Amino acid sequence: MTFPRSILPKHFLILLCVIVLGICLILIRLLKWHPSHHYIPSSGNLSVLSGSISSCDCKGQTDLHQFLPSDQLNDIIKSRAKEYKEHQLRMKTNTDILIAPANSPLQYPIRGFSVAPLQKSLIPGLGLYTQKREVYKVSLSVEKGVLSVDEDVNKEQVNGQGERKLTISSSSLKEVNDLLSRVTYTSTIYHIRTSDLVHFSFEDNEAVFPVIIRRPTVPVLFNPGNDINSQVTITTKTFLRYNKLKVLIKSIRKVYPKIKIIIADDNPNPENVSGDNIEQYIMPPAQGWFAGRNLAVSQVTTKYFLWVDDDFEFMDETRIESFVKIMEANPELDVVGGAVSGEQYYFSLEYIEDDEGGCLRRFQGRHHKPLPGFEGCFFVDVIVNFFLARTDAVRRVGFDPFLKRVGHTEFFIDGLGKLLVVSCKDLSIGHQIHEAHEKYDVYRNEGESEKEKKYAHHFYKNYLKCIKY
Amino acid sequence: MTFPRSILPKHFLILLCVIVLGICLILIRLLKWHPSHHYIPSSGNLSVLSGSISSCDCKGQTDLHQFLPSDQLNDIIKSRAKEYKEHQLRMKTNTDILIAPANSPLQYPIRGFSVAPLQKSLIPGLGLYTQKREVYKVSLSVEKGVLSVDEDVNKEQVNGQGERKLTISSSSLKEVNDLLSRVTYTSTIYHIRTSDLVHFSFEDNEAVFPVIIRRPTVPVLFNPGNDINSQVTITTKTFLRYNKLKVLIKSIRKVYPKIKIIIADDNPNPENVSGDNIEQYIMPPAQGWFAGRNLAVSQVTTKYFLWVDDDFEFMDETRIESFVKIMEANPELDVVGGAVSGEQYYFSLEYIEDDEGGCLRRFQGRHHKPLPGFEGCFFVDVIVNFFLARTDAVRRVGFDPFLKRVGHTEFFIDGLGKLLVVSCKDLSIGHQIHEAHEKYDVYRNEGESEKEKKYAHHFYKNYLKCIKY
Repeated sequence: MTFPRSILPKHFLILLCVIVLGICLILIRLLKWHPSHHYIPSSGNLSVLSGSISSCDCKGQTDLHQFLPSDQLNDIIKSRAKEYKEHQLRMKTNTDILIAPANSPLQYPIRGFSVAPLQKSLIPGLGLYTQKREVYKVSLSVEKGVLSVDEDVNKEQVNGQGERKLTISSSSLKEVNDLLSRVTYTSTIYHIRTSDLVHFSFEDNEAVFPVIIRRPTVPVLFNPGNDINSQVTITTKTFLRYNKLKVLIKSIRKVYPKIKIIIADDNPNPENVSGDNIEQYIMPPAQGWFAGRNLAVSQVTTKYFLWVDDDFEFMDETRIESFVKIMEANPELDVVGGAVSGEQYYFSLEYIEDDEGGCLRRFQGRHHKPLPGFEGCFFVDVIVNFFLARTDAVRRVGFDPFLKRVGHTEFFIDGLGKLLVVSCKDLSIGHQIHEAHEKYDVYRNEGESEKEKKYAHHFYKNYLKCIKY
Repeated sequence: MTFPRSILPKHFLILLCVIVLGICLILIRLLKWHPSHHYIPSSGNLSVLSGSISSCDCKGQTDLHQFLPSDQLNDIIKSRAKEYKEHQLRMKTNTDILIAPANSPLQYPIRGFSVAPLQKSLIPGLGLYTQKREVYKVSLSVEKGVLSVDEDVNKEQVNGQGERKLTISSSSLKEVNDLLSRVTYTSTIYHIRTSDLVHFSFEDNEAVFPVIIRRPTVPVLFNPGNDINSQVTITTKTFLRYNKLKVLIKSIRKVYPKIKIIIADDNPNPENVSGDNIEQYIMPPAQGWFAGRNLAVSQVTTKYFLWVDDDFEFMDETRIESFVKIMEANPELDVVGGAVSGEQYYFSLEYIEDDEGGCLRRFQGRHHKPLPGFEGCFFVDVIVNFFLARTDAVRRVGFDPFLKRVGHTEFFIDGLGKLLVVSCKDLSIGHQIHEAHEKYDVYRNEGESEKEKKYAHHFYKNYLKCIKY
């Protein structure tokens, strides 16, 4: 009797041992894969990839080296490399890619966190989220500034107040996060536009995120007023053909009796061009085409200016208001081009960066995309000499006064990536009949030597290896 | 006997039940806090904080509202608000802060990932790192472009090729990561400078990171040549005092016989100022101080220009080379100021942004920091009329031609945050003796009405509420 009695508890014991064993196994498994969450091989750690480098060959293009004096070639290339390095430093073009590691217990800001130089600012969004520890210890370090925890802190918990490396430790996770929420950054260097990197770590986990150090800028706005005369200035450049200029002015005044006209004049024998709201600027003789353009634009006080050549002619359908309407509807646009005697003449540019100098190609009649909502308007890179532009945007690019006789695409090359340009079909102006003008044509027609000088100029100035027009 | 026998197993039973219960409780606790790793209340999910908004009152400052015609005040404020909004849109000043959530199994790029508009680019650094699942399913979505997995893909694993939302699913984590490593982004909008956001998610985890859409720019470099004449142009503006100008030119030629001098001249009765490498530009009469400066700078073809007033005088110790040395050693500098007859006159500006218009204060003799390695040089915001500047940097800011009679600090206000300015003690030039000049002083001395016009101009143009000079 006792035997059968005792068999039941024995079975119970075995059964329960099996259950406990099973549970223990589950427990072990749980505890085993759990930490692996935090320590993923390399992919879990932060990796920095350098930006991809494109390259270009000069197949079917004009190699610019041939236009440089071979005896100075090496010196020119050395000097150009120095200026290019300086340019990259100034433009901050070389930013490494930062990767956010997976399964990091750290929380931090990845974008849009900027501080004023030498001013204390809170670092937003810092946090630690992990399972129980005896002690939690996180540290942050920077290069161009110092870190500290704002308000009263316990010296045992915070180490390195006001230094480049700050360490926070506590037995309470809540406390660590409270301290992290009060961490500030103060740049020790003065700069108006630079950045620093914050290295934020806990045990084997590290996250790196940027701090943008930037001096706030004061806005510079134009008061567009209420009428076309306070919105737009007409600008032109004249040389050796006052007869054409007079026809242009007369045609403008028919439609716009009061709008300001700015004339850059590099005639060898300047004649006085007067009239209500006409400003004439006399330059040294034959100072050149782009110098004149740059001068005219430098004198504009309106939000927009309209560029016209001195041999154009306003027609009944020539309406500056249509340009303004497109600009005001698309505030990010910088330049809107029209058509000259019905010709909507435009190009797109293909630019390939290369460490030995870039490759640039121009494609006639090729556009990027239509401008949504404006039929006949397309995003392009190069347009005709008849355009409305934002004064501030074009000033930032400027017309290179080096280009004396012929320059047009050159302005758009300098403006590539800086000016948002569209060309529109229905904005038209006329062109006066071209009469042969010996003296003018001598200056105008680009001689071979002039062309070679221009290519050599592009080689250095635009860091180009080859061009195809 | 049976009683004591049976008591043991009974106790075992109770004991084991207690153990099992305890284990169960531990298990429950484990299972309970475990998922919380992935789902941290709000802080774990992506949070977007808007940039902090500072504010300012006009205590002890000149409130600019008083200088506006009260009957037009509302219209002016409305118009200004519109232009300001446009400015913010163009400058992309409002970027929200993005936070990387903790314990996310997702890996992704947080900085430096940029693409050319309309061009397909690989998204670097994408990955998923998590424990075993039956099926792994991640998805990515964007606004201004489309996503796809490059090269051959299995339709069952990849959904939404070439669309705004891409889904990848597989029973193999390795395969998911292989597919993620081939995900590309192609913008469908054309823009030269904008950004998109990628929403990357797995189960309840989401990460958001930016894509920078940017058209590469062509470098614009200056060939500094080998001597001071090819590095620097001297620029000045003259009005009603050719006698002073001639003294200046004579003093320059003593030290620099060949350096180019550009003169902006708005005299009512222009006299011809000629000489080797002297360029005179004749403006409409009394066109004004800043218009003249802007004209002169627009004609410079060298990397640097030196600004001097027409009544300054080069002394034996006046050396342009010293300016150039500082600039070349610190390529990020834009403007280096000197001292006029021993006076190293400089200011710092304090600018506080505010939605109703900012507050601007000027502090004489206050600097930000010394320029490391150059004794007597300090980072400041406003300097004297004797400075060397990078031509391209100053052109980007420009001199507002609206300011006819008096303008100086105004240039540095427009340049705040755009120009890195230092002032140096040991770069000296002389000032010619000031003779009373009735006609000149009439123009020069700023009348009250002129001052009021200037304040009203600042109110609109610089989006300011008050100023303290």
